[in-house]
Amino acid sequence: MRTILLVNGPNLNLLGERELGIYGRATLPEIVTGLRAQALDNGYTLLDRQSNHEGVLVDFIQEHGAGAAGLIINAGALTHTSIAIRDAILARRLRFVEVHLSNIHAREEFRHHSWLSDKAEGVIVGLGPDGYRYALDWLIQHPAEEAKQ
Amino acid sequence: MRTILLVNGPNLNLLGERELGIYGRATLPEIVTGLRAQALDNGYTLLDRQSNHEGVLVDFIQEHGAGAAGLIINAGALTHTSIAIRDAILARRLRFVEVHLSNIHAREEFRHHSWLSDKAEGVIVGLGPDGYRYALDWLIQHPAEEAKQ
Amino acid sequence: MRTILLVNGPNLNLLGERELGIYGRATLPEIVTGLRAQALDNGYTLLDRQSNHEGVLVDFIQEHGAGAAGLIINAGALTHTSIAIRDAILARRLRFVEVHLSNIHAREEFRHHSWLSDKAEGVIVGLGPDGYRYALDWLIQHPAEEAKQ
Amino acid sequence: MRTILLVNGPNLNLLGERELGIYGRATLPEIVTGLRAQALDNGYTLLDRQSNHEGVLVDFIQEHGAGAAGLIINAGALTHTSIAIRDAILARRLRFVEVHLSNIHAREEFRHHSWLSDKAEGVIVGLGPDGYRYALDWLIQHPAEEAKQ
Amino acid sequence: MRTILLVNGPNLNLLGERELGIYGRATLPEIVTGLRAQALDNGYTLLDRQSNHEGVLVDFIQEHGAGAAGLIINAGALTHTSIAIRDAILARRLRFVEVHLSNIHAREEFRHHSWLSDKAEGVIVGLGPDGYRYALDWLIQHPAEEAKQ
Amino acid sequence: MRTILLVNGPNLNLLGERELGIYGRATLPEIVTGLRAQALDNGYTLLDRQSNHEGVLVDFIQEHGAGAAGLIINAGALTHTSIAIRDAILARRLRFVEVHLSNIHAREEFRHHSWLSDKAEGVIVGLGPDGYRYALDWLIQHPAEEAKQ
Amino acid sequence: MRTILLVNGPNLNLLGERELGIYGRATLPEIVTGLRAQALDNGYTLLDRQSNHEGVLVDFIQEHGAGAAGLIINAGALTHTSIAIRDAILARRLRFVEVHLSNIHAREEFRHHSWLSDKAEGVIVGLGPDGYRYALDWLIQHPAEEAKQ
Amino acid sequence: MRTILLVNGPNLNLLGERELGIYGRATLPEIVTGLRAQALDNGYTLLDRQSNHEGVLVDFIQEHGAGAAGLIINAGALTHTSIAIRDAILARRLRFVEVHLSNIHAREEFRHHSWLSDKAEGVIVGLGPDGYRYALDWLIQHPAEEAKQ
Amino acid sequence: MRTILLVNGPNLNLLGERELGIYGRATLPEIVTGLRAQALDNGYTLLDRQSNHEGVLVDFIQEHGAGAAGLIINAGALTHTSIAIRDAILARRLRFVEVHLSNIHAREEFRHHSWLSDKAEGVIVGLGPDGYRYALDWLIQHPAEEAKQ
Amino acid sequence: MRTILLVNGPNLNLLGERELGIYGRATLPEIVTGLRAQALDNGYTLLDRQSNHEGVLVDFIQEHGAGAAGLIINAGALTHTSIAIRDAILARRLRFVEVHLSNIHAREEFRHHSWLSDKAEGVIVGLGPDGYRYALDWLIQHPAEEAKQ
Amino acid sequence: MRTILLVNGPNLNLLGERELGIYGRATLPEIVTGLRAQALDNGYTLLDRQSNHEGVLVDFIQEHGAGAAGLIINAGALTHTSIAIRDAILARRLRFVEVHLSNIHAREEFRHHSWLSDKAEGVIVGLGPDGYRYALDWLIQHPAEEAKQ
Amino acid sequence: MRTILLVNGPNLNLLGERELGIYGRATLPEIVTGLRAQALDNGYTLLDRQSNHEGVLVDFIQEHGAGAAGLIINAGALTHTSIAIRDAILARRLRFVEVHLSNIHAREEFRHHSWLSDKAEGVIVGLGPDGYRYALDWLIQHPAEEAKQ
Repeated sequence: MRTILLVNGPNLNLLGERELGIYGRATLPEIVTGLRAQALDNGYTLLDRQSNHEGVLVDFIQEHGAGAAGLIINAGALTHTSIAIRDAILARRLRFVEVHLSNIHAREEFRHHSWLSDKAEGVIVGLGPDGYRYALDWLIQHPAEEAKQ
Repeated sequence: MRTILLVNGPNLNLLGERELGIYGRATLPEIVTGLRAQALDNGYTLLDRQSNHEGVLVDFIQEHGAGAAGLIINAGALTHTSIAIRDAILARRLRFVEVHLSNIHAREEFRHHSWLSDKAEGVIVGLGPDGYRYALDWLIQHPAEEAKQ
Repeated sequence: MRTILLVNGPNLNLLGERELGIYGRATLPEIVTGLRAQALDNGYTLLDRQSNHEGVLVDFIQEHGAGAAGLIINAGALTHTSIAIRDAILARRLRFVEVHLSNIHAREEFRHHSWLSDKAEGVIVGLGPDGYRYALDWLIQHPAEEAKQ
Repeated sequence: MRTILLVNGPNLNLLGERELGIYGRATLPEIVTGLRAQALDNGYTLLDRQSNHEGVLVDFIQEHGAGAAGLIINAGALTHTSIAIRDAILARRLRFVEVHLSNIHAREEFRHHSWLSDKAEGVIVGLGPDGYRYALDWLIQHPAEEAKQ
Repeated sequence: MRTILLVNGPNLNLLGERELGIYGRATLPEIVTGLRAQALDNGYTLLDRQSNHEGVLVDFIQEHGAGAAGLIINAGALTHTSIAIRDAILARRLRFVEVHLSNIHAREEFRHHSWLSDKAEGVIVGLGPDGYRYALDWLIQHPAEEAKQ
Repeated sequence: MRTILLVNGPNLNLLGERELGIYGRATLPEIVTGLRAQALDNGYTLLDRQSNHEGVLVDFIQEHGAGAAGLIINAGALTHTSIAIRDAILARRLRFVEVHLSNIHAREEFRHHSWLSDKAEGVIVGLGPDGYRYALDWLIQHPAEEAKQ
Repeated sequence: MRTILLVNGPNLNLLGERELGIYGRATLPEIVTGLRAQALDNGYTLLDRQSNHEGVLVDFIQEHGAGAAGLIINAGALTHTSIAIRDAILARRLRFVEVHLSNIHAREEFRHHSWLSDKAEGVIVGLGPDGYRYALDWLIQHPAEEAKQ
Repeated sequence: MRTILLVNGPNLNLLGERELGIYGRATLPEIVTGLRAQALDNGYTLLDRQSNHEGVLVDFIQEHGAGAAGLIINAGALTHTSIAIRDAILARRLRFVEVHLSNIHAREEFRHHSWLSDKAEGVIVGLGPDGYRYALDWLIQHPAEEAKQ
Repeated sequence: MRTILLVNGPNLNLLGERELGIYGRATLPEIVTGLRAQALDNGYTLLDRQSNHEGVLVDFIQEHGAGAAGLIINAGALTHTSIAIRDAILARRLRFVEVHLSNIHAREEFRHHSWLSDKAEGVIVGLGPDGYRYALDWLIQHPAEEAKQ
Repeated sequence: MRTILLVNGPNLNLLGERELGIYGRATLPEIVTGLRAQALDNGYTLLDRQSNHEGVLVDFIQEHGAGAAGLIINAGALTHTSIAIRDAILARRLRFVEVHLSNIHAREEFRHHSWLSDKAEGVIVGLGPDGYRYALDWLIQHPAEEAKQ
Repeated sequence: MRTILLVNGPNLNLLGERELGIYGRATLPEIVTGLRAQALDNGYTLLDRQSNHEGVLVDFIQEHGAGAAGLIINAGALTHTSIAIRDAILARRLRFVEVHLSNIHAREEFRHHSWLSDKAEGVIVGLGPDGYRYALDWLIQHPAEEAKQ
Repeated sequence: MRTILLVNGPNLNLLGERELGIYGRATLPEIVTGLRAQALDNGYTLLDRQSNHEGVLVDFIQEHGAGAAGLIINAGALTHTSIAIRDAILARRLRFVEVHLSNIHAREEFRHHSWLSDKAEGVIVGLGPDGYRYALDWLIQHPAEEAKQ
């Protein structure tokens, strides 16, 4: 069974606890459980990691990225500051979809720029936890062989 | 039955004919047919309009936007140049999801800015025609009453 | 009887329906009726056009601008995006006053720049429908012969 | 009888003497006399001050601004350099209309920015002394109780 | 006989009437007549369209661009604001030469940028109606087969 | 017989040797020979100079510019860096057409700005050696007496 | 007894009257009384001046700055516009602490830049009248002899 | 007893060892000991953490921030690069005062911007270890109930 | 006898006392005495004013500028912040030479821009008190009649 | 024996595995082995650390930097985002040479800026693993005593 | 006898021939003759060079700059483009005064920046050939021994 | 024997004479002698040219660049201003290493940008004359056949 990676960055472990108006009430474990089932139903294993440490996320991508079928990433605040995560994804030649729970274009100016978007297959913002679900659906429906060049 | 609007801007009538590497092989009528069925299955009517004329799109949004349950919009090149469409959507207080078939963040710099994104519920880019499908799914799953403030 | 033109751009047909806090409760027909009477009382005909189409406004200015005694223009969103309207006015050498119902300097940054202001006789913003009335009064009180060079 | 304030900034005491092509032939005393009559006819007292000193204008606004029904201000060159005047107006919570005799958008780039405009009810530029007249008319026609929020 | 397209944007229908110092005395019909003869002499049909409507120009390029041997375009004010026209030309993979009657580099700053130039075969500015003639000559002398990669 | 000057800047002596994809196969002597004949046929002498030295080009323009009927200039890389050449042309009040073999708008950002364009009669880019031919044709067809003001 | 200067700029005389949410309820005389006592308890005289006139503050700093043990300055709006006050402080080689009652970094963009901060010993913002107290404490605890180089 | 948090970022463990001219001679343990006593005297516990790892600081704020009475933070170099710390503080809705030992406005340009300042209650820079003392005093004197909105 | 004005701005009264390395040892009265003699020797009266108040300088220029033969101005810090002084000079149509004792181009970035220079006959910086002497010499040698247009 | 430090940042552990076109085929252990031998031959010990964690690199520099004879650093992606590493090096007053395997000036714009270069002795980019060798050679040939001031 | 150098850049050999409105009627030889006499009267030799070649001016400064008592330079257009001349002057540690005949601040934006001014003793612009005279006077009156540091 | 070119730009002939703190004590002839020997030892001829004239360097590169095995270039001040040298190198398709004796990133802002770096194989700055030696070593160790694509 092939693996799809799910990476969540800083403070996303607080989902369901903080700023419910912006991020919604679902907790991260609840979201991951749903995605894991969705993957399994389609014959994939979902391997996930949340961390507040940039280095831990880089290590994770390096370690598990080589043979993976795709990556879903919500890098949180590191979206706007980490080039190391970008480089790790590129080094592992991972196809990935970038997800943000809130609409980053409707928030502070500094959240409008992402170090990942120009290398992503696609980006989904503002649709809450459904964004992860759509991203996973897309990666499953569009396996790498037919991926856009 | 409530209505969901679908607006496509300039040159999207050429889908399936042009730049297949970027936009894919599906034609716009094929895409719309699929979305119409998806809407009906969920108890909604899909009303769509494609035009190369900014004014036609503004007229359409004004005329049909008042009672609509939501809007899916891919304004094409007008994404980057039209404030009139933005104003029409705001005037009609329409909830909407912005969709782009290609990943606009991976293309020319001038395609990175959208006059719509900061007012959208969410934005989906780069996932091809599936983007419309996810947008429609989301609008149906999240009717206005529970919409994010 | 000489003619004064009144041009209103996209979405101004919705006056009185939308965003009353910003634009007030008067409808466009009500405003135009008042201005027409004001013009007639002073021996002028008011010729007006509202459109959501940039091209229609350019056509209108070309067609009626040649012999007109002046122009009052609220180009709406096209204020910030249309150079074609600017060029049409200059081509017809029309004296004009630019009007905005709301105070555009108190709104989004992109509404602070107008492609028309540097060529106008004057600009009135934020005073609601009275702005049109003052603009018309000024054009009548200051016929072209004594206009500023 | 309620008071409306009129503030004129540096060099406006030279009206009628300097750069007639830009500013016109009316002197400031002539203009003030006309406005005072217009105010009285409508049941208001006009209290005016011209000064070349930023501090004098701040003192004046502080001293007379508390109970005033409105303010008409042409801050001259201080429009572009004084934040202290802005703060004084805000501290006194004064409703105000900003006026410029010439069309500042048609002049040097540095005259396009005003430290006052985003806090004004409205702005009138380029219409000469009539601008003051329209501003006064508007303040009288729209007493604070019904002012825009 | 193969076709070469000629597209003229807003206000170019006024040629010969307006701002003679900048644009010269030739009218657009006179210019087109000359170009049509030049094309015929070389075995081509010239198909032309002028419009003040961006959408009309996009429609025209879509409809006639597919089999055309080339395009000469003077988009007028839309040169600086329309991405939709750029996209229509690219969608039709049209070889084109951009022409401006006046020297846009000698005019307002905002006329220095064109949304078309970086995709054109070449650009001719400031040479009046002769610019069209040279553009047509070049397209005829350099048929697509030998076009620069 | 009146003289028309032809100035070519750095590295244009390598034409036909370098980067054929960008600059084409014609050598500079071949191009000059053709232009000289074209000039003679119309009763003009063509005087040309190529140099990799800015100072040599300034000297040449100073020495021969006084009585010349016009100038065709392709300053090569100096287009983007030399104000001295601009000043020499202005000092000699030379009418000139600027030519670039390649489309500088399709190349690196720094090639988009020219220190000459705003003072030229016209500019032709991207049409290869034909650009010189059109420039010469235009200068001959439009002698200074009728030049645009 | 050595002197410490306290300078307050435009509109700070309104403390306790205006915008209580931002500036708090203490009046300037109350604040100064407290600081004077604090200074005396430590063997210093506090000499203070508030003015809405930049020139008055420059005069004050010139006159009293020569032998002073330090300066506490809240220049109000002049913080962002006055280089003359900066120069006066530097000319008198005064050690100073800059204080702002509100957090200027949380307010309008133009309040983020101060013409004084890069020359201050330290800056305290957002802590209300306590900011003055801390500044005075620091100047007293760190007499010039041991001041940071 | 309620808790106040103290967070120190990268390289602040070197205090007293490095660049004494800029940062002073006190070591971090010495400073913390003083602050702990100051807190205890006022009925608070001080909980502190220094780390060179952004992730460790985010973890610490998440873990201890929920019930804390306030936060004093000197994020060192992360002040200018970490959005994750900002987000952690906001997620925990912590009132905080930002402190810098040196005057960051007198140092390199890139030290003038802080990702924290606009969300802080106040900011103290340049006053050395006394900055921490004043920050703690302020948090104690102004418990959250009366905090500025 | 015609008058030449000399205006010195804020802090220039401290010449000879402050920052001798930058400004030199001559006091302002000493400098003025020398200039007055130089003027008298050439048949002119020198009328001078130094002030730390922008308004005083504007008043002075308005009052004495009308008939004056020229103006020498060193506006000190107001050079970089006062548009009112610029406007006063223009209103009085005064020919003037701008002088700075120090080389403002070798100092802080913000001292490189002057609101006066583009309207001056000439500018002299960095030559100390001699700058005034040269400016006076030039105004005397080049009376207005022969002034550059 | 004195120590020279070698620091490699994120993703450099993947050398020889990823993007061989850009980074070459040598693995990091191979490179380090070679450098260690080169150091020993010259009487130095090479102490190296690679990490994907900024904090680990800061810890390493703090711990080993005090007595070291120099530092060779390739901070990878952290080159462009980490001020903490810069501060750690400065705090330890380490002489260092910055190395990049690829030519960062030929890659994305954001790789052109380094937070380290302005404090380095020298920088070597684009020469692959040889860059480390040259850097080590230079540090050995130029011991600190004779280092450039 | 010590030497003072005079360097004039491109197109200054045309003085008295070109653009008399801007540069005046004096020819360069006339100006040099006057300066040579002025130098001799004060015991100095004036050594001058004009060239349109940057390299010639660099050579000249290198060759004669070593022992010279000062330099007067009007680099013409090279003022805005040549760093090599700046470096040559610095390499020879020459004290110099920069002169421009016209007021460069009143001309095109690109003439406002000089690569020389921040290293000059002083700068004189807009005073025509008198500028050279004042510069020479200043260098003579202020020999290097007493020069400003 | 194949040739390697060495190009040195303006003022580098002064090495060993000027600014020893920045550039070191070695003269250019001494450096060249060493490099020539190093080349010969490896079977290459070193052909060098220093000039203060941009055109001379372009001529040299054109003349000798065709068959050369590589180029070492320190263009001095022309690094920041010459596009012609860049174009000459590209026209000759020369592999090259850029060298600067001093660390240009630690000097004035304008020295941080090079017109050559993005096209170089590599860049070495700040290592003094050793930079040339390393560059030569690299070109010899990495002959073109195996050069990076």
